[in-house]
Amino acid sequence: MKFCSACGFEVVFRIPEGDNRERYLCEQCDTVHYQNPRIITGCLAIWEDKVLLCRRSINPRKGLWTLPAGFLENGETAQAGAARETWEEARARVVIDDLYTMFSLPHISQVYLFYKAQLLDGSYAAGAETVEVALFDEEEIPWEELAFPVVRDTLQHYFQDRIHDHFRVHTGDIIVQRDRRSG
Amino acid sequence: MKFCSACGFEVVFRIPEGDNRERYLCEQCDTVHYQNPRIITGCLAIWEDKVLLCRRSINPRKGLWTLPAGFLENGETAQAGAARETWEEARARVVIDDLYTMFSLPHISQVYLFYKAQLLDGSYAAGAETVEVALFDEEEIPWEELAFPVVRDTLQHYFQDRIHDHFRVHTGDIIVQRDRRSG
Repeated sequence: MKFCSACGFEVVFRIPEGDNRERYLCEQCDTVHYQNPRIITGCLAIWEDKVLLCRRSINPRKGLWTLPAGFLENGETAQAGAARETWEEARARVVIDDLYTMFSLPHISQVYLFYKAQLLDGSYAAGAETVEVALFDEEEIPWEELAFPVVRDTLQHYFQDRIHDHFRVHTGDIIVQRDRRSG
Repeated sequence: MKFCSACGFEVVFRIPEGDNRERYLCEQCDTVHYQNPRIITGCLAIWEDKVLLCRRSINPRKGLWTLPAGFLENGETAQAGAARETWEEARARVVIDDLYTMFSLPHISQVYLFYKAQLLDGSYAAGAETVEVALFDEEEIPWEELAFPVVRDTLQHYFQDRIHDHFRVHTGDIIVQRDRRSG
């Protein structure tokens, strides 16, 4: 951020009065430009004991498998966003059970939410950002070709919880040490 | 948003190519300025079966009681943010159990997270944005003077779950119909 989005003046990066951390702020119109973590919301969608995965057609992690998920939009509930992303990426309609996993990724200022859901009719197809969609049994999961740690962790929780047919919300943090040399 | 924060040029509000909703975008440097919901994170902090509440010294809902909570910051886990806010607003140190409630508030593009937590040593004091902090037994809760529906709902879940000493994550949406006359 270099310019004030309200008045177009150049911003500075310093601690505003009464605050305790640096923000972009405009000394022309006094706007403080807060920047906050974004939410990524998606589904662990199930059909006849199989899990729906999408192979990514875009970077990051192009060619690897993921659960359908994307940025929550303004004006949308987290649950509605999860269903929307599942439609956009996997052309699958879902009935959502409830929140299943939540992860903080502080190094990239993201919070991931995955909802456990059932496919409505078992149909799916590659949508935007997806080359291929498929349903996987536990023994078929491409563990070495998963796109993100949050996907791996969510799948591991699911197969573990499924043993006792007792599903509860799991939360966790994905901590990645930044390489100080590259800033 | 009127100006591009990257180059200072005036932005337009339209659907970018390949997208399906309106965004602020800059036709000078091609930056799309995504705007997404913010996360508010806080604690349902307990001490000897009492709940910690803060009376707000600022608007909105000045003078009403709330659970300590505030905007999650970049670079922070949701859990760390909840503990930080509890320190900043109530000068109370907590040991967090786990996520307890999550609410989407699509009309203001916010997602609330409350963590169940125990006070570390029972000490507290009014911090920033707070006039007064106190511990409340169930029968003392000022139900008519609570600041936000998410606070009421979280307290209701807690006292209900406490009957059977079985606490699970509760999720929900707070839906407020916009008055179309006022936009």
